[in-house]
Amino acid sequence: MNLPGAQPTRQHHAGDAPTGRSLDPHRQRYAQRAAGMRASEVRALFAVASRPEVVSLAGGMPNLAALPLDALAEDVARLVAAEGQTVLQYGSAQGLPALREQICEVMSLEGISAHPDDVVVTVGSQMALDMVTRVFCDPGDVVLAEAPSYVGALSTFSAYQAEVVHVGMDDEGLVPEALRQVLGALSAQGRRVKFLYTIPNFHNPAGVTLAERRRAEVLEICARHDVLVVEDNPYGLLGFGDQTHPALRSTEPDNVVYLGSFSKTFASGLRVGWALAPHAVREKLVLAAESATLCPPAFTQAVVSRFLARHDWRGQVKQFRAAYRERRDAMVSALEQHLPAGCRWTRPDGGFYVWLTVPEGVDTRAMLPRAVTERVAYVPGAAFYADGLGSRQMRLSYCYPTPERIQEGVRRLAAVLEGELDVLRTFGGRGSPGRHPGLAGPHSPSPDTA
Amino acid sequence: MNLPGAQPTRQHHAGDAPTGRSLDPHRQRYAQRAAGMRASEVRALFAVASRPEVVSLAGGMPNLAALPLDALAEDVARLVAAEGQTVLQYGSAQGLPALREQICEVMSLEGISAHPDDVVVTVGSQMALDMVTRVFCDPGDVVLAEAPSYVGALSTFSAYQAEVVHVGMDDEGLVPEALRQVLGALSAQGRRVKFLYTIPNFHNPAGVTLAERRRAEVLEICARHDVLVVEDNPYGLLGFGDQTHPALRSTEPDNVVYLGSFSKTFASGLRVGWALAPHAVREKLVLAAESATLCPPAFTQAVVSRFLARHDWRGQVKQFRAAYRERRDAMVSALEQHLPAGCRWTRPDGGFYVWLTVPEGVDTRAMLPRAVTERVAYVPGAAFYADGLGSRQMRLSYCYPTPERIQEGVRRLAAVLEGELDVLRTFGGRGSPGRHPGLAGPHSPSPDTA
Repeated sequence: MNLPGAQPTRQHHAGDAPTGRSLDPHRQRYAQRAAGMRASEVRALFAVASRPEVVSLAGGMPNLAALPLDALAEDVARLVAAEGQTVLQYGSAQGLPALREQICEVMSLEGISAHPDDVVVTVGSQMALDMVTRVFCDPGDVVLAEAPSYVGALSTFSAYQAEVVHVGMDDEGLVPEALRQVLGALSAQGRRVKFLYTIPNFHNPAGVTLAERRRAEVLEICARHDVLVVEDNPYGLLGFGDQTHPALRSTEPDNVVYLGSFSKTFASGLRVGWALAPHAVREKLVLAAESATLCPPAFTQAVVSRFLARHDWRGQVKQFRAAYRERRDAMVSALEQHLPAGCRWTRPDGGFYVWLTVPEGVDTRAMLPRAVTERVAYVPGAAFYADGLGSRQMRLSYCYPTPERIQEGVRRLAAVLEGELDVLRTFGGRGSPGRHPGLAGPHSPSPDTA
Repeated sequence: MNLPGAQPTRQHHAGDAPTGRSLDPHRQRYAQRAAGMRASEVRALFAVASRPEVVSLAGGMPNLAALPLDALAEDVARLVAAEGQTVLQYGSAQGLPALREQICEVMSLEGISAHPDDVVVTVGSQMALDMVTRVFCDPGDVVLAEAPSYVGALSTFSAYQAEVVHVGMDDEGLVPEALRQVLGALSAQGRRVKFLYTIPNFHNPAGVTLAERRRAEVLEICARHDVLVVEDNPYGLLGFGDQTHPALRSTEPDNVVYLGSFSKTFASGLRVGWALAPHAVREKLVLAAESATLCPPAFTQAVVSRFLARHDWRGQVKQFRAAYRERRDAMVSALEQHLPAGCRWTRPDGGFYVWLTVPEGVDTRAMLPRAVTERVAYVPGAAFYADGLGSRQMRLSYCYPTPERIQEGVRRLAAVLEGELDVLRTFGGRGSPGRHPGLAGPHSPSPDTA
């Protein structure tokens, strides 16, 4: 468990001044927050990932192969022909009422009972998170996030100059005792904690799930410390078992803002997500969203609404699950087969990601260019921490490539790692990674998610 | 000309605490900016406008009747069937390269020569304005805006706790001398001005256009005071003459951020807008946009791109112009025919709006409920000022209703005004509006746009 709470990140005060100073005539005009706006590694890797010879285990692009495109094409055509005057027009800032009702139906699969009036449709759940941060965070406020956490959330928090304090996880997700300690340390420092940002199911990037027996405890700790819970759940319906975990929101409607998305269960290119919030918070979110985009696209909302109404969307989700499960199996078996001793990884029960820890001495960020030369890409672990940790970790995505490509990618990655370890063995380094003390098997907790 | 610069608005420090205190358990948790998040009158009026018996002269909804829905339906179907795997997938944060090239073509009609790499596609130009404000404005920074200005821009500036200082207009748009005085007064106060937000063409809500001979002067004044110019131009191609005004950006590429939109020239429900910015600023805007929505919807961008590529979009814009010109004529002739003495209004050469000034003693906000009872709606002028002015003004939109409905709406509005004036004459008030000194004809400058 790590406790960087003592030194909250200030990445938004660093920034790209060195280059900016010489090149950018507008530099003196930017807001303070702009100093923290730097290209994320995930984004930089989109370019790499697009080169066909590279096996990208980097991006989180969903696999859309199972979508019934011809049926969708007909649907969308009917929508434009029959309802074009409405769906091509401005809509309400809160989102289409019919879609908000359907969203409540979708959430009921996770035990959530909600009223459509408390749902706000957003441009992907990324915008929902941006709006929540806009409504709650002043510069210097503390946001708690798992260690590691979603890179896109860290950049949103940075944009609002919130300070991220990480809370440790193990293979059963967020560690309640770690949460208690962090909150205790912060209140001793008199710091203002606005909310806990958590991804309970099939975590991005850690690939772990919050154990159900921990959920009530996490909610209780946050309630006692008067800290709001922001539950980000884009993968909740993509579990590889048949059972779906009950959302935190299902047992605590008054202190949880729930974020959902159709990006992984239908189509990410429509950018339709949502927030479910306590009523008073919902009112603020709608006004914040109105000042951000006026209203979400009526057209993409109508496409999603029609899909939910006319297609067997539960069957569609089952197909997605099967495709991702097959890919998860391909990746895990390839990791077991090819990776050198001293590597450990999580074994996800759903979602898109495996979190890999490499032997001591290997720096995943420094190794990335060599990996790309060997035609395999990943996201270095440091991208998922606001405090510079994660140098021995990487995120591997199995969502997009075929099982064969995944296996080939892992083979290439293993070869790159072997090369790194040879160099370490030859020229030394901090101990022989092969015999690093305390290493356990692939199914044990990884120290950086623990 | 008004100079509220001496008392910049602090509406974001006021807010809805009174009700919030009693009802909202989360009230103590909100960011300071949330105090300024209050329902805008424009939004509140969407509900009213939707009732069929009410003639809404309030909303700015474009008239989509001229769109070729059947052809669009076929197009969109082909798009999904042939390119679904791409257009339903995540895209780049900056927007589709093909669309950014087409956007440069569109902007060339206003004399702009730009590179697609300096264009950022956003979820409507509202999001572009939000991103510009995010990149440039710290709390307390000053943003200059015309008096009156677009209500949606004022709420965005408030969300970032920027302080709006208004600059006077007359029937030829922003008054350069007023700009000089405001900038002088503010620099004397040592205030930091980040940018001038201006709508040069067919202003929302004032309905006036910045005279071409003033454009170089406005740019020169801003350059001399090291103030960026944010040029918001959603209506530029909707002029009722044949000639299109050269954009401010066309003569000053280095100190202007240009905002464009397809909401008025194609379809607002797709929410596709853009920003064209100096290169270094563009880089910041892309990173800001990535933290806000990850990427704009690939699907809606592809729909716009296909429309521009396969349809006679210039011909489509001509049809829109004709429809809006016919409605402008209907409104102006109805105003001349029905409105009581002492009313003055602007006569727009393009766009959607007429700015009406009523006789002294009439408060347009107080009158609105009576107007709605008489089945006509408008937006009270106060919504377009950050400093509480505008009580004698209202915005009338002619974009959406039929010419007959517009005439009926103006008839109803005239009756409501007559009723107000009767009350004033009977029970007194500040002077007889009919013989108010200094009133001029309908074509003279209105004091609140001058």
